[in-house]
Amino acid sequence: MDFKLTVLGTASAKPVTGRFQSAQVLSVRGRSFLIDCGEGVQTRLEDCHISHASIESIFISHIHGDHLFGLFGLLSTMGMLARPKPLCIYAPASFGPLLRFFLSYYGEGIAFEIRHVPLTMKAPETVYETKSLEVKAFPLNHGIETFGFLFREKEPQFNVRKWKIEEYSLSLAEIGAVKKGEDVVRQLPDGSSKRIPFEELGYKPFVPRSYAYCSDTAPFPELSSWVKGVDLLYHEATYTAEYESTALARHHSTTIQAASCARDAGAGRLVIGHYSSRFKDISLLQEECRSVFQETYAADDGDVFSVPLVKLD
Amino acid sequence: MDFKLTVLGTASAKPVTGRFQSAQVLSVRGRSFLIDCGEGVQTRLEDCHISHASIESIFISHIHGDHLFGLFGLLSTMGMLARPKPLCIYAPASFGPLLRFFLSYYGEGIAFEIRHVPLTMKAPETVYETKSLEVKAFPLNHGIETFGFLFREKEPQFNVRKWKIEEYSLSLAEIGAVKKGEDVVRQLPDGSSKRIPFEELGYKPFVPRSYAYCSDTAPFPELSSWVKGVDLLYHEATYTAEYESTALARHHSTTIQAASCARDAGAGRLVIGHYSSRFKDISLLQEECRSVFQETYAADDGDVFSVPLVKLD
Repeated sequence: MDFKLTVLGTASAKPVTGRFQSAQVLSVRGRSFLIDCGEGVQTRLEDCHISHASIESIFISHIHGDHLFGLFGLLSTMGMLARPKPLCIYAPASFGPLLRFFLSYYGEGIAFEIRHVPLTMKAPETVYETKSLEVKAFPLNHGIETFGFLFREKEPQFNVRKWKIEEYSLSLAEIGAVKKGEDVVRQLPDGSSKRIPFEELGYKPFVPRSYAYCSDTAPFPELSSWVKGVDLLYHEATYTAEYESTALARHHSTTIQAASCARDAGAGRLVIGHYSSRFKDISLLQEECRSVFQETYAADDGDVFSVPLVKLD
Repeated sequence: MDFKLTVLGTASAKPVTGRFQSAQVLSVRGRSFLIDCGEGVQTRLEDCHISHASIESIFISHIHGDHLFGLFGLLSTMGMLARPKPLCIYAPASFGPLLRFFLSYYGEGIAFEIRHVPLTMKAPETVYETKSLEVKAFPLNHGIETFGFLFREKEPQFNVRKWKIEEYSLSLAEIGAVKKGEDVVRQLPDGSSKRIPFEELGYKPFVPRSYAYCSDTAPFPELSSWVKGVDLLYHEATYTAEYESTALARHHSTTIQAASCARDAGAGRLVIGHYSSRFKDISLLQEECRSVFQETYAADDGDVFSVPLVKLD
């Protein structure tokens, strides 16, 4: 029942010793999703003991090289090692010609199916869905078409307390009603009815967990509402507060802007990354964020952030 | 007066923790040449304290991703940091469309001129030349168009021993003759002539140094003669001897084949790399090579091999 983020790279456009470019893996209940593919991503996966064969799908925020140039080597290796299952890549529409050109040159050794789902939305839209998980993509503000991703476990069905089934001899229909969160209403022989309140019979087994990835982006008003209440928020913080005008010019965010988004969203924790290579010591970036949002963590390459499952009842 | 090879990556197609893909820097008398660009090359340059700004030219052996996919990130970074000088890339003709496609998508931020010199030769040909250095490219045997490179310092002009200039009161014309390696012949008043042998007057100031890069290739008869007498030979050794048939099928070499090339060429030292990811311990590969050619060194990422300048006289 894992819900675990592994940060593979925390550099921005210029990688530095010890910091690779943007790439992350989110693992949810045994499914692994690769988010962005900075150069060296296949090595970083191995470094972090994550098999590339375990990657189910790939999410690309935008086509800038520091988020993409590791993909082609990874696809080549997946092909060489005969990946048996198809791969879906959620990426901006502008990624299409890049993928086609790559496959025209290097596709011979790639036998598995690659499907590109082009992202074009102007507001959050569901792009991936299973019984227990939903992923929404939403636009960011980065000068070129760029998307963030919100991974959210679905609300679980209610559980029915076993001893209440016995106590009331609940019928299958009544159990079904409780699972939907409804009270049980029984007709009594005297024509009256008896209501057994849902709260006595059922409970939500756990709190759904969520993660949002926001890189690269300048701040914009809608973002915090789009990631409202997220447990774990990754937001780029390329610059310290003093570089606000540089950040604005380059469609990036400062520490304060990232932390403000986390605060306004009511996030559980904020993870920052995508640091400008000018910052040798990232503790200052963390400090600045904490002045606005205490639960901020400045990620280093290889850091892992888990969202524990909170069971109810 | 350096002549120094820095091996940035020693993995073959699948990188592994601690081994990046093929990339090397040869530094000759202050000029730096990047040879192949496996993924992560810009990080590896930084790790090895080599400024990408110092790279004068790039030599690409072939377009397989493990020798090329680091180039595009490197070019992007060079563009972002406003490289002031043009860059020449010596690469197979098949590289042309790749470069053009890359520039059509990512060229906006790249203001410096990039010139692609397409390699098409069937036998060694000089592709680069300065007053003191010459680079020849030659075809390898790898299934797709692939080239090796031979970097060789030019034969220096002869020096004239200063005290001999005084002893014989050598004229400018006579000094010029000695510099060309000729004897000095003087007409005496009695009509006879006197010959002062070159060996007494002049000497070669140093022995020119050389380096050859041969990756990827299956063995073929001409190769050892093309790199005859090279001081430092890099030859891929993807496999141990027991995998000879695999090596053949994939157009690669075994340890024994690499070492045989070094022996037949009369090389000074052999450096091997491009190891299959199946080999966790490369000492076996070195041992196998040494059974044929004692002066073999199995490179690890970051290893440096210098060819010292041997001064004469």
